[in-house]
Amino acid sequence: MSPLASQTDDFAQWYLDVVLQADLADYSDVKGCIIFKPYGYAIWEMMQADLNRRMKEHDVQNAYFPLLIPESIINKEKDHIEGFAPECAVVTHGGGKELAEKLYIRPTSETIIYSTFSKWIKSHRDLPLKINQWANVVRWEMRTRPFLRTTEFLWQEGHTVHATEEEADEMAAQALSMYADFDHETLAIPVMTGKKPDHDKFAGADYTLTTEALAKDGKAIQAGTSHMLGQGFAKAYDIKFLDAQGKSQIPFITSWGVSTRLIGTVIVVHGDEKGLRLPPNIAPIQVVIVPIYKTDHERDSVLEACEALKTKWTGVRIKLDDRSDKSPGFKFHEWELKGVPLRVEMGPKDLAAQSITYVRRDTGEKQQMLSASADSVFIQSLLSEIQGSLFRQAQMHMQEHTFTCETFEDMNNYLSNVGGFVWAPWDGLRETADRIKSVTKATIRLVDTEPRDMTGKKDVLSGNPAVKMALFAKAY
Amino acid sequence: MSPLASQTDDFAQWYLDVVLQADLADYSDVKGCIIFKPYGYAIWEMMQADLNRRMKEHDVQNAYFPLLIPESIINKEKDHIEGFAPECAVVTHGGGKELAEKLYIRPTSETIIYSTFSKWIKSHRDLPLKINQWANVVRWEMRTRPFLRTTEFLWQEGHTVHATEEEADEMAAQALSMYADFDHETLAIPVMTGKKPDHDKFAGADYTLTTEALAKDGKAIQAGTSHMLGQGFAKAYDIKFLDAQGKSQIPFITSWGVSTRLIGTVIVVHGDEKGLRLPPNIAPIQVVIVPIYKTDHERDSVLEACEALKTKWTGVRIKLDDRSDKSPGFKFHEWELKGVPLRVEMGPKDLAAQSITYVRRDTGEKQQMLSASADSVFIQSLLSEIQGSLFRQAQMHMQEHTFTCETFEDMNNYLSNVGGFVWAPWDGLRETADRIKSVTKATIRLVDTEPRDMTGKKDVLSGNPAVKMALFAKAY
Repeated sequence: MSPLASQTDDFAQWYLDVVLQADLADYSDVKGCIIFKPYGYAIWEMMQADLNRRMKEHDVQNAYFPLLIPESIINKEKDHIEGFAPECAVVTHGGGKELAEKLYIRPTSETIIYSTFSKWIKSHRDLPLKINQWANVVRWEMRTRPFLRTTEFLWQEGHTVHATEEEADEMAAQALSMYADFDHETLAIPVMTGKKPDHDKFAGADYTLTTEALAKDGKAIQAGTSHMLGQGFAKAYDIKFLDAQGKSQIPFITSWGVSTRLIGTVIVVHGDEKGLRLPPNIAPIQVVIVPIYKTDHERDSVLEACEALKTKWTGVRIKLDDRSDKSPGFKFHEWELKGVPLRVEMGPKDLAAQSITYVRRDTGEKQQMLSASADSVFIQSLLSEIQGSLFRQAQMHMQEHTFTCETFEDMNNYLSNVGGFVWAPWDGLRETADRIKSVTKATIRLVDTEPRDMTGKKDVLSGNPAVKMALFAKAY
Repeated sequence: MSPLASQTDDFAQWYLDVVLQADLADYSDVKGCIIFKPYGYAIWEMMQADLNRRMKEHDVQNAYFPLLIPESIINKEKDHIEGFAPECAVVTHGGGKELAEKLYIRPTSETIIYSTFSKWIKSHRDLPLKINQWANVVRWEMRTRPFLRTTEFLWQEGHTVHATEEEADEMAAQALSMYADFDHETLAIPVMTGKKPDHDKFAGADYTLTTEALAKDGKAIQAGTSHMLGQGFAKAYDIKFLDAQGKSQIPFITSWGVSTRLIGTVIVVHGDEKGLRLPPNIAPIQVVIVPIYKTDHERDSVLEACEALKTKWTGVRIKLDDRSDKSPGFKFHEWELKGVPLRVEMGPKDLAAQSITYVRRDTGEKQQMLSASADSVFIQSLLSEIQGSLFRQAQMHMQEHTFTCETFEDMNNYLSNVGGFVWAPWDGLRETADRIKSVTKATIRLVDTEPRDMTGKKDVLSGNPAVKMALFAKAY
C-alpha cells in the first residue's frame, strides 16, 4: 500500500486514498458509479439499522415503490421536473423494443409515490400517512467523488401526508431533528440546522430544511434535508381527503432523506493523517485484537488469551486479527487506516503481567491495565467515551471555524484564508448571494430560522437592509 | 371489502384478492411493477434478516454494485447475454444527452460483478471470495403477477469465487442447502431439490440447482436457484489467480439467489379460503390482541388487561388492535385475512374468569386458558407449534400430490386431473421434454441428483432408455 496523501497538503487526494485504501469503495466500469465494498457497505447497514429505529419512533413504515417512472407521471409537477429532468437517466427500450412511453430512473420518488397516495388516501382517517423507502436513485452528475457525489447512490426517502399545514410543518421539523440527533448521537457529527434560501430549495417544495456539517478542510457538507412540500404535489397528483365534516380537502406533504453521502461525511469530518476514524456506534468492527508473539510457543498462549477476551467481551463487535503472514506493525497501521475505534494488543509481556494494552483511535493514547478489570462494561464504556470524544473534537473544530462577519472584507478573509462557516446579514436577494459566490466561491448553506432582531443590520455586500442571518461556506 | 374469490374455484383470482386485500402490494403506474406496501415489505425485511444470518455462517459479506451495466461489459459472456438481452431495459439517454454507450439495467449482476472481481483477485490468498448483494433487478416480462413475476423485483444474489472446481461445486450445493433450510425452518415450506435440466439452466452456467415448492393448486414454484458457473465467466471477465506455486490459474464461480417471489410462494403454499397464513418466523405481527367490550366501563378494564398482556409477552411481535370504530368481528376477519398466526381475544368473561381466549390461524382451533399460565414461554412455544404445524400441513399436501409414473397415460392423468409433482424416467432429451410439455403443459422442474440404478427404465413418452428420474409439474 502506498502512503496516504497528506490531509493538510492535499485533502482531496487524501480523501480518495482513504476511500480506496480503507477498502470502503472501489471505482466501477460505470461512469460516476462506485462499488460499495463490504467494509463500506457494513457502515451503511449500521446507519440503516439506527435510522430504522428512529423512524419507527415516528410511526414511519417502510415500503417500496418502482424504480422506473413513466414520463407522464414525472411530468405532472412542473417545478419538480424542471429541476430534475436534466439529471435523469432515461430508459427508451425494454424487452427488445422501443417503448411507447419513456421511463425515467427515479432521481427521487415524490412523483411515483404521490400518484399512488392519491389512490390510498380517501378520508381524514387515512392521515397522517408516513412512509419511508430505502432505495437506489440515479442522478446524472458531471463531476463525481466516491460517496460524496455519485451518479447512483443509496438513500432513504421519507414521505408523509398530513391533514393540516401545521402538522406538516411540524413533521418537516421533526424529520430535521431526527437527522440532527442521528448525526450527533450516532455519527458523532455536530451540524448546523436551518432553512435553505429559496433559490436553493428542493424543486417543487415550499421550503427545505437542512443539516450542514463541517469537513476538516473547512468546507460545508449537506448531510440531510427535509422538505415541506405544501400542497403543490398534492394538487399535481390529485390527492384529496374528506375531512370529519365530509368536506373535500387537499393535504400537506413532507419528504426528507439522507444518503450514502453520509459515509463520505464521516470520512471528511473525523478522518486524520492516519486515515479513517469511525465512531463506535457505526463501526462494523469496534475492537480489533492484535496478538503479538515471536515463538510458536508464545503464539499458542497469546492466541488463547486473545480468544478468551473475544469471548469475554459481549455486546461488542470484535475482530481478532490472527493472520500469521502479517506483522503486528502492519496490522496496527491497517486498522488505524480503517478507523477501528479501539485496538487491543496482547503479547507475552501482557500475559505475564495479566494485563492488556489498548490504544484509542480517537486520541492515539496507549494504556496498560489489568485484564481482570477489563470486562464488557469497561470496554463498552470506553467505546462510549471514544464516541463522545470524537463528537467533541468535531464540535471544537466547528466552533473554531464559525465566524460572524459584518463586512464583506472580513467575510472574504475568513472564507479565503481560514475556511469554515461565516454568519453574515443577508438582504434576502438571490442576486446578492450570487455575487458573493462569484467572489468567494461560498454559497448560503442555510438561513437562520430563529426569530432575531435585524433592525439596523445591513447586507454584508449590497448594504441593503438585511432580512436574515445567513450561513455562508464553500461546500462539497 | 369484497369477499375473497374461492381458492378452489378460482385460485388465480383468490391469489390477487389476497395480495390486495391483505395489504401486501398494490399495482403501480408502471407496467409489470408493483408497490410493496408496508405489510408486504415487512415480510421481506424478516426474510432478509434471516438470510443475512444464514449467509454470515458461510462467511458471505454484503456489498453493492452498480445498477447500470455498460453494453460492452454485459456482452462479454456470449451465452449469458443471449439469454438475458431480450429481457433487458436499456438506458439510452442520461443528463439530457444520448449516451455514447448504452447502459443495461441489471437483470442480474454476474457481468458487472465479475468485471470487478478481476481487479480484486490476484492470488490464491484472495480466495475464496464470497460476496452477496441485496438489490433491485429488472427483467422485461410479458405476463406479470404480483410477487410471482414482476418486471422489477427485489432479491439477493450471492457470488463466490473458488480456487478449485470441487470447492465451487460444494459451495453451490451449500447455497442450495441453505435455501432449503430457510424454506423449511423459516418459511415452513417443504421443497424438492435437484438439478435443472440442461436446457433450463442459467444462461452461462455449467449447471443450475433448484428448490421447488408446491402451491396449493398443484403447481410447482421455483423458490431459489444456485448456479455452478464453472470457468466460463472467469474466462470472459479475465479473472485469474496465482496459486501457491506461483502458477496462473482460472478460478471457479458460483452464483445463487432468492427474490421477493418468495412472498408469493408463502401465499400460494400456506393460504386458505380465509386468506393469508403467515409462518410465525416471518410474520410482522405474530400475535394480535382483540379487545371485546360493550360499555365504556368494560372498555377501560378490558383495554387495561390487553395492555398488560402486551407488556407481559416479551420476545413476541404483538399488535393490540384497539380501534374503536371497528367491531371485533370485523377485526377477526381482517387479521385472519392478513394471516396473523395467533389471535388473542379478551373480553369481560375472560376478565371475570382470569382467562384469555386464543384462536390459532393454522387450525382455527379456539382455546380458553388461565391468564396466569399464558406467559411469554407459553406464547413462544405456541408460535413454534404453529410454525411446525404449517410445515406439516404443506408437507402432507406435497406428499399427497407427488406421484411416480411409468407410463405417459398415467402421468398425463395425474397432471391433468390431480395436479402436483410427477416423477418419471426421462431419456435426457430436450425434444422429449418439449413433447411432454406440449401435451401436459408440464415442464421438468428438476432431475434427480442421487445415484440411482436406471437399468431397464424407459422414458415415459419416447420409450428410449431413461437416463434420469425427472420431476414434472405445471409451474408458476
